[in-house]
Amino acid sequence: MSNKTITSSLPVPDILRCAYMEIQVTDLQAAREFYVDILGLQVTEEDSQTLYLRTMEEFIHHNLVLREGPVAAVAAFSYRVRSPQDVDKAEAWFKSLGCRTERRAGGFVKGIGDSVRVEDPLGFPCEFFYDVQHVDRLAWRYDLYTPGALVRLDHFNQITPDVPLAVEYIQGLGFRVTEDIRDDQGVVYAAWMRRKPTVHDTAMTGGAGPRMHHIAFSTHEKHNILSICDKLGALRKSDLIERGPGRHGVSNAFYLYLRDPDGHRIEIYTQDYYTGDPDNPLVSWDVHDNQRRDWWGNPVVPSWYTDGSLVLDLDGKPQPVVERSDPSELAVTIGADGFSYTRKGDVEQGFKLGNTL
Amino acid sequence: MSNKTITSSLPVPDILRCAYMEIQVTDLQAAREFYVDILGLQVTEEDSQTLYLRTMEEFIHHNLVLREGPVAAVAAFSYRVRSPQDVDKAEAWFKSLGCRTERRAGGFVKGIGDSVRVEDPLGFPCEFFYDVQHVDRLAWRYDLYTPGALVRLDHFNQITPDVPLAVEYIQGLGFRVTEDIRDDQGVVYAAWMRRKPTVHDTAMTGGAGPRMHHIAFSTHEKHNILSICDKLGALRKSDLIERGPGRHGVSNAFYLYLRDPDGHRIEIYTQDYYTGDPDNPLVSWDVHDNQRRDWWGNPVVPSWYTDGSLVLDLDGKPQPVVERSDPSELAVTIGADGFSYTRKGDVEQGFKLGNTL
Amino acid sequence: MSNKTITSSLPVPDILRCAYMEIQVTDLQAAREFYVDILGLQVTEEDSQTLYLRTMEEFIHHNLVLREGPVAAVAAFSYRVRSPQDVDKAEAWFKSLGCRTERRAGGFVKGIGDSVRVEDPLGFPCEFFYDVQHVDRLAWRYDLYTPGALVRLDHFNQITPDVPLAVEYIQGLGFRVTEDIRDDQGVVYAAWMRRKPTVHDTAMTGGAGPRMHHIAFSTHEKHNILSICDKLGALRKSDLIERGPGRHGVSNAFYLYLRDPDGHRIEIYTQDYYTGDPDNPLVSWDVHDNQRRDWWGNPVVPSWYTDGSLVLDLDGKPQPVVERSDPSELAVTIGADGFSYTRKGDVEQGFKLGNTL
Amino acid sequence: MSNKTITSSLPVPDILRCAYMEIQVTDLQAAREFYVDILGLQVTEEDSQTLYLRTMEEFIHHNLVLREGPVAAVAAFSYRVRSPQDVDKAEAWFKSLGCRTERRAGGFVKGIGDSVRVEDPLGFPCEFFYDVQHVDRLAWRYDLYTPGALVRLDHFNQITPDVPLAVEYIQGLGFRVTEDIRDDQGVVYAAWMRRKPTVHDTAMTGGAGPRMHHIAFSTHEKHNILSICDKLGALRKSDLIERGPGRHGVSNAFYLYLRDPDGHRIEIYTQDYYTGDPDNPLVSWDVHDNQRRDWWGNPVVPSWYTDGSLVLDLDGKPQPVVERSDPSELAVTIGADGFSYTRKGDVEQGFKLGNTL
Repeated sequence: MSNKTITSSLPVPDILRCAYMEIQVTDLQAAREFYVDILGLQVTEEDSQTLYLRTMEEFIHHNLVLREGPVAAVAAFSYRVRSPQDVDKAEAWFKSLGCRTERRAGGFVKGIGDSVRVEDPLGFPCEFFYDVQHVDRLAWRYDLYTPGALVRLDHFNQITPDVPLAVEYIQGLGFRVTEDIRDDQGVVYAAWMRRKPTVHDTAMTGGAGPRMHHIAFSTHEKHNILSICDKLGALRKSDLIERGPGRHGVSNAFYLYLRDPDGHRIEIYTQDYYTGDPDNPLVSWDVHDNQRRDWWGNPVVPSWYTDGSLVLDLDGKPQPVVERSDPSELAVTIGADGFSYTRKGDVEQGFKLGNTL
Repeated sequence: MSNKTITSSLPVPDILRCAYMEIQVTDLQAAREFYVDILGLQVTEEDSQTLYLRTMEEFIHHNLVLREGPVAAVAAFSYRVRSPQDVDKAEAWFKSLGCRTERRAGGFVKGIGDSVRVEDPLGFPCEFFYDVQHVDRLAWRYDLYTPGALVRLDHFNQITPDVPLAVEYIQGLGFRVTEDIRDDQGVVYAAWMRRKPTVHDTAMTGGAGPRMHHIAFSTHEKHNILSICDKLGALRKSDLIERGPGRHGVSNAFYLYLRDPDGHRIEIYTQDYYTGDPDNPLVSWDVHDNQRRDWWGNPVVPSWYTDGSLVLDLDGKPQPVVERSDPSELAVTIGADGFSYTRKGDVEQGFKLGNTL
Repeated sequence: MSNKTITSSLPVPDILRCAYMEIQVTDLQAAREFYVDILGLQVTEEDSQTLYLRTMEEFIHHNLVLREGPVAAVAAFSYRVRSPQDVDKAEAWFKSLGCRTERRAGGFVKGIGDSVRVEDPLGFPCEFFYDVQHVDRLAWRYDLYTPGALVRLDHFNQITPDVPLAVEYIQGLGFRVTEDIRDDQGVVYAAWMRRKPTVHDTAMTGGAGPRMHHIAFSTHEKHNILSICDKLGALRKSDLIERGPGRHGVSNAFYLYLRDPDGHRIEIYTQDYYTGDPDNPLVSWDVHDNQRRDWWGNPVVPSWYTDGSLVLDLDGKPQPVVERSDPSELAVTIGADGFSYTRKGDVEQGFKLGNTL
Repeated sequence: MSNKTITSSLPVPDILRCAYMEIQVTDLQAAREFYVDILGLQVTEEDSQTLYLRTMEEFIHHNLVLREGPVAAVAAFSYRVRSPQDVDKAEAWFKSLGCRTERRAGGFVKGIGDSVRVEDPLGFPCEFFYDVQHVDRLAWRYDLYTPGALVRLDHFNQITPDVPLAVEYIQGLGFRVTEDIRDDQGVVYAAWMRRKPTVHDTAMTGGAGPRMHHIAFSTHEKHNILSICDKLGALRKSDLIERGPGRHGVSNAFYLYLRDPDGHRIEIYTQDYYTGDPDNPLVSWDVHDNQRRDWWGNPVVPSWYTDGSLVLDLDGKPQPVVERSDPSELAVTIGADGFSYTRKGDVEQGFKLGNTL
């Protein structure tokens, strides 16, 4: 990051929303079984190397591109912008930061037209596009819904060593912070940022990065999420359930974390709140509050803190991973040296019967 | 409307969302029982004449003001704008249309600061404000949730004789149309328009107007709506249920319509879809499609088409009601002269077993 | 009924539960589309003339047999008894009433062993069996669940002209009455009777009979029922929805009534209550209580009162239908001469806004 | 147990169902807050020492008696029998086993008439009664329902060192086994037994006993259970959540385990299956199957295996606790020496990402 700045005086592109992620998988058939047969994402288009998938309520070509490749990694965090001109603005803005960019009038993947991909100041491959192929919005196609139907792409979550730096950069790009996790020493462990008026389009999670923490799809109701767990149990694939289901403190949403056959983390998510007013109140959580990550105080499994997916540069090579120098959320909250409370002021560490952490 | 134009070359205010409605009720205690004891809206503040209520996820002072008065009527459809300057823009924009406006630096109701109220070109009393008192967002206060908890204000719905004219005006004010109901003769029966990226902040329903058709609050899940019906049954107030519960065709949301003690119509609503992209596809429904208003083809009760609440001018006097000259949706779809089909091309009128309409 | 008695001094069979219905349909492919493709019943076995279907939690061979035949009618209301000896008891008991019986050691349909079929004193074809083929209980097979998965057979509902007579007969057979609908003149309009500890295994509905009113399958939750409506809408078959969804007063269950392609009525039902104690309180509803049939006061469509399926005698010929001589529930509650109230003591007939009935 | 037999040739009482538990608590006000204010159980009657509580669908006086006393312990596992004569049979049956019994014509607690309490062969205090005071069944009182409303008492769960012995005894008393957990060495770790046709009225869990493992109440739907967790989070009492929510393998029910202020374990439970046929298939689970206790493979917290409530003898003194000599389920499945698999035949022990157990 040494030769890059993270702020620019140029006008920022008007970003609408996180739109899709392009993920490299090592076994496309295994991935198809997971995303299509189990999760029920709809296939817009596919070939021997690539699968274009979308949620039930989406009208653009896809929310997820799976491409077979030699290493499990993320090729693009892709955002839709408001107009064709905003693609130009995005290109100029990142160029002014000294970032590598690549513009393709015909798009990088099927269904997307003119777009620009960048290696952002944090090392993530991001894309900005407006032109897109419309497809049928399947919202009313209840004959196609499964018990765990995924209806929208909700957000991305990125792992980066320096959260305040990441927040400064992405606020400069026009995102607003809705919630964060801090301690009373001023350390920021994670932050949630939005363009569309939900809790986030992306979040920054402190850790060795740049890596992808997860991509999240939403369901209509909580029972839809439970049914995904039930189905994984029936298929004897319950070991793909990493964490949850549960209620988040941050975002107030109901959640579940799965791991796909390559270990990419998928969140299933529902029912956060409206954040679209400019003075929407920031919610800051104490890192030692045991209800911040799970409102019910259920333990966060260590892998959830430590594992993440590599991200690719614009040549398709994995970006090197830099360790976090600030304290880790795992270390300060779990285990012999950690501390978590259920009620502010509790003096005992044992916050759950049986002390499961 | 003769001496008003509906378009202006002035800059439009940046409207965030429908924010609250001020409703005049004839018996505040009866209204309190309905909105607070039965529906569980949270009381921000109250006095002998007025009740300020909000939903569980709201952080501004209120989403509903109930004021006791001599006649059941709506005093204001109130929108929040992005900045204080947008209040100025709103005032200027409506003045340029020849509309009566009134600006109050201290606001018209508690909790709201500088705002402008206008008699819009359609005869509705509208308000635009930015300054507002923040209150606790109760989203995480599950100890206060009832089985039918209302979590957000979702939208307004207005009755007006000339829907295309209303659409032209409100598009000029920056709203986008998401869905409408038409026939093959070019008659428009209703249209849905949004600022926030849901299906609507307000809708225009063709009929004698200006009148208020309903105000809609949303729940998290469908069972929340069912529980409101169950509770009304337990209280032997099931006659307050006017229509539903059911699934809308338009908006794809799950719905219920109630009538408050004054006859004001309240919708409970959940799970429409994201509409925030500028090229969000317009969904046009054929007025004869029996699934447009209820996806399950259940009948719309006539009162739902015919009844509405008066609206007040800025002096607090009811606006005169003008009849619709275009055909009514009720007449063209229900009864001896109406026609509705379940499947396009059906030749028989009887679309339901027992022909209940 | 003239030459039959309805009571016997012989020991009664110990009936466990309603187990399956055999229904004759006129188009097996159309029926298969409805029961298998739409409702998701599981196929245990099938041939060109017959379809054997079961619910997700069933471990006996089937809960429904569909057989193609010349007329839409019910061939058997089949009950499981506790032991092989109870089949003997059933045969003897009905013989002692003068009823025609037929015993087949190999069963009348696949999957069922030794059983007896009878023409009961009310003219219904009933079956009693113990021997049955076990099949996989699919309760844990969440990979096979649909959004509207049917998990159990819950009950039958029969139309018969003389409800008190029917109740006397079926109580003699060991059933207990859990709820009924009456008026203050002593007329009984309907009664619910159980063997298993739910509200009913069968109900007697007053009307021209013997006819079958409906067969009911249960889901786990209310949203499962709503999803069936949504799917019918998506398939443009919403005209198969006859009544509901809604909450029953009687039984307190959540319900939906569909009509299959032959017009046979299917109820989808969930969440009644435990009735297994011998002193379980009888709940009697006033026929004029508008919340008895729908707790939310929503109208009962006339076809629900008037339509029913023919039943076959043991030769496969339709039983003649005898009219009801007591007042009909339809006549006393709906229309110009009917009367329904929301609150006991209400003097006005118009119990719903818009007076939809 | 040395001087007691566990079988008798006397006729067994006809037990209907588990009916209520009497629990001694050390702080009645704290218990009231938990059971009434948080869980929403309905108060039938109360005095300074005792609280009589029932679920929404119950029509007998109570399902739970809380009595303040010096030690947290269970005073009675109480079953309802079919007739007054069955109380006699129960008394005689236990006397024939050499068990201490106490008969009180006026009952041991309010609302219950003639009943017998026994110290059963396993050391548990059990009660059998028929006479009971009827109270309003609140099933239709939706104005009283909370989001997490408890609608029925579902079952008890008892800890005893020798599960096969306990099963032999309770089968002799007329219970049927529906499911169990075993290993291929013939060790039985737990078994589920029923009278009413659900998966159980009580279960025997292997461990140091006699102790009470939990008492379970049921809700209508899964979201009701989630809402209890949400509420505990809002009240900053999430540390009362011991395990779950989750889906059981055994019983297929959705579950949650709480601990009351005295540490008594409460399960909230919904949606198991019908078991009333005499040939209902027994489901045996392998103790090493990681989905047996949680279908989603989520870890069982150690306290869930180790903790339990003392039980009182008929003098109100705690029964001594005897250790289990067979292997413990905790030891054979969790930790360095344990082994659990997701898929039969898996060779690796690490059954979950992050290996959280």
